[in-house]
Amino acid sequence: MEIPFIKMHGLGNNYIYIDLFQFNIEEELLSDLAQKVANVNTGIGSDGMILMHPSEKADLGMRIFNKDGSEGKSCGNGLRCTAKYAYEHGIVTKEKFTIETRANIVEAEVTANDEQVELITINMGRPELRRVHIPMMGSDDPEVISEPFVINGEELEVTAISMGNPHVVFFVDSIEAAPLYELGPIVEKDPRFPEGVNVEFIEVISSNELHFRVWERGSGVTQACGTGACAAVVAATLNHHCNKNEAVVVHLAGGDLTIKWDEAGDVWMTGGAEIIAKGVFQYVE
Amino acid sequence: MEIPFIKMHGLGNNYIYIDLFQFNIEEELLSDLAQKVANVNTGIGSDGMILMHPSEKADLGMRIFNKDGSEGKSCGNGLRCTAKYAYEHGIVTKEKFTIETRANIVEAEVTANDEQVELITINMGRPELRRVHIPMMGSDDPEVISEPFVINGEELEVTAISMGNPHVVFFVDSIEAAPLYELGPIVEKDPRFPEGVNVEFIEVISSNELHFRVWERGSGVTQACGTGACAAVVAATLNHHCNKNEAVVVHLAGGDLTIKWDEAGDVWMTGGAEIIAKGVFQYVE
Repeated sequence: MEIPFIKMHGLGNNYIYIDLFQFNIEEELLSDLAQKVANVNTGIGSDGMILMHPSEKADLGMRIFNKDGSEGKSCGNGLRCTAKYAYEHGIVTKEKFTIETRANIVEAEVTANDEQVELITINMGRPELRRVHIPMMGSDDPEVISEPFVINGEELEVTAISMGNPHVVFFVDSIEAAPLYELGPIVEKDPRFPEGVNVEFIEVISSNELHFRVWERGSGVTQACGTGACAAVVAATLNHHCNKNEAVVVHLAGGDLTIKWDEAGDVWMTGGAEIIAKGVFQYVE
Repeated sequence: MEIPFIKMHGLGNNYIYIDLFQFNIEEELLSDLAQKVANVNTGIGSDGMILMHPSEKADLGMRIFNKDGSEGKSCGNGLRCTAKYAYEHGIVTKEKFTIETRANIVEAEVTANDEQVELITINMGRPELRRVHIPMMGSDDPEVISEPFVINGEELEVTAISMGNPHVVFFVDSIEAAPLYELGPIVEKDPRFPEGVNVEFIEVISSNELHFRVWERGSGVTQACGTGACAAVVAATLNHHCNKNEAVVVHLAGGDLTIKWDEAGDVWMTGGAEIIAKGVFQYVE
């Protein structure tokens, strides 16, 4: 079967996108298709597959399948790519619109120049600061802001946040010297985090600029993590390094994101998205 | 720049192919294009890029670029894919034809059914048995057939062959128990092989069937190695497990190849090739 596809990436986080406004695929094939198309040796190669589909609840819908064929809930980089494609291909005709995911309905806004989308802003929702909802075991403090945290015999300070998934943030003097590979895998699996945790290191350059590196739960070091960049700015604001309602540029290994935690409590992420290739995939069940 | 591409694989060895009969690319862009298109995060993702081009010396020509942008000489799996594409797209109109590579001019033959190529046979040339041309240091014997070989304090027997690149072959009782990860990296860099070596383990099932696993020089364990499968059958024949001029099915991790070492001394490799996808790559210099 010939399946039309688009490959796109946001900061190197790459998916095979299928436009279900133009083409239909049977539900029972999706998991198998995602695994085959994502395999770099015998398929195209990607972090997974994203379907863009009509929605009754929003302007369009998006479903994510991981490399292993399982279905995910949401993905910040994937939302930016989906928003860019939807605007450039006339699925939506306004700059502000909504995208349904398995997690929730998300607001998106594109900045276009001559029909080409240059930047996409996504409302990533409200951070969850309550310890039991992150979840993190430990003291009786209801929130985890610069809390002493002993690991590997060293006493550090940790700030913990959920952006739908759990994050811990450590501030460092130099991002180059951040102990990403040393502490990442240990903190991720520390028993104080019953669901594991994403581990982030931040160097504060100014109240509007951070350096950022991440060890992702289940993936290790990655080029970019959209929810991690949001958690970083929330953590920096809680620790008085940044200010609410001000845009902060976060330098990730894969590129930059601009994050704003607004007065209403929502975190907005702005960044680019790139179309890599378009074509037809030869799918054999 | 929009660059039309085809992604194909042979036993999982995958390249982005560009048909220069249809489309032209400036020479100075090729190395950069190969690196960008092969990058799975921001490009399509592949082992490299292969150009199919007009030739004055053969029916068509083929150039290979590795993932790092350097130019390679030849590739058995790439030759099968190129031959399939050339026949199915009318670049050649006969079943037997020739392909120019940077290494030499290669004979190819396709078996087609209803215009679809099912199997491709490539003349992989004559094995080089002379020790100094493999190259391998050691005894005064001019050839290396079941020669005692002490490694890691263990005495094994080794047969060494060049198929344009150096190979050593060890016979094992069970392919599942082959010490691929233990001995592969040590033998590859053993000082007796001044140019390094590809390390192969073979289990003989019958005179017409072998199990095969490979540790490739510079790459580690891979799914398939065409020249390695050829070396395996030559080594098995030199050790009286197989017979000249008889087809031998070699089971690689990525699939099967059929190898025949003919009376004239040439080694013929027969196997499949698969078209994965076709489309247009958005190239940004």
